[in-house]
Amino acid sequence: MARYHMKKKDREITDSNELMEILKQGKYATISMCRKNEPYIVTLNYGYDENKNGLYFHCAKSGLKIDFINENPQVCGTIIEDLGYIADECEQKYRSVVFWGEMFFVENLEEKKHGIDVLINHLEKNPGKVKEKSIKSEQRYEDVGILRLDIKELTGKKRM
Amino acid sequence: MARYHMKKKDREITDSNELMEILKQGKYATISMCRKNEPYIVTLNYGYDENKNGLYFHCAKSGLKIDFINENPQVCGTIIEDLGYIADECEQKYRSVVFWGEMFFVENLEEKKHGIDVLINHLEKNPGKVKEKSIKSEQRYEDVGILRLDIKELTGKKRM
Repeated sequence: MARYHMKKKDREITDSNELMEILKQGKYATISMCRKNEPYIVTLNYGYDENKNGLYFHCAKSGLKIDFINENPQVCGTIIEDLGYIADECEQKYRSVVFWGEMFFVENLEEKKHGIDVLINHLEKNPGKVKEKSIKSEQRYEDVGILRLDIKELTGKKRM
Repeated sequence: MARYHMKKKDREITDSNELMEILKQGKYATISMCRKNEPYIVTLNYGYDENKNGLYFHCAKSGLKIDFINENPQVCGTIIEDLGYIADECEQKYRSVVFWGEMFFVENLEEKKHGIDVLINHLEKNPGKVKEKSIKSEQRYEDVGILRLDIKELTGKKRM
């Protein structure tokens, strides 16, 4: 993965707790994919799995993004905290992470269950309530598509 | 550019005024690039040029994103209006556009001036004030890097 040194050193986030905070507080990630040198972009709600240092997403069981990752699992993604535009300064306030990794369609039923669990725990304030409502049978798990993104490298940047 | 039909037809934005509104109201775009089948992602404040149906960005005069577009100008980008997560529903409210196009580093001084004008008019509430403050000499224009993205295709999606 190509990566140059950040030009504005004072904007780089190096504290791992702060990087973790951005991953844990974000609701959605935007992912850059490519196949045959053609770029594609998708934005998806996610759940962060701290043990695996990975993200889980849910999706349909077929479609363009799945075709892209089947051809090339290498992806580059970002999570952005928009802290507002600074009027008269031509500047945006933000915290963000950019990460490189590989993305896969999860086939294993046990891992699918785990992924859904991670997603609901991450996104919902009352995960118990949502799990009770949304997952009623084994069949339900089989119908849902789950993607996992393994993070290999992560950088952070901010302008407060 | 590969593009399948949207699965959830009721979420597709087909009204060109609404698509235009998202382009005009957004402050930043996230862009997916690729070279040698390797993906990269950047998020940048932009100005929308309605006449050219393109976006202008400012940037440093060298760096990774410029290397990527020099090798492969094809990009895919997105602008997202985050309308909030719907608790207990596992759903995100949003309006978004995804676009395909080509991105170039602008070398011509007159077009650079135009691009900066578009950017400041788009981003600022008092563009006159900002222009007066930020652009003091011809040299200043030469020092700034400007990118132009020509939009070739655009789709929109929403969940309200």
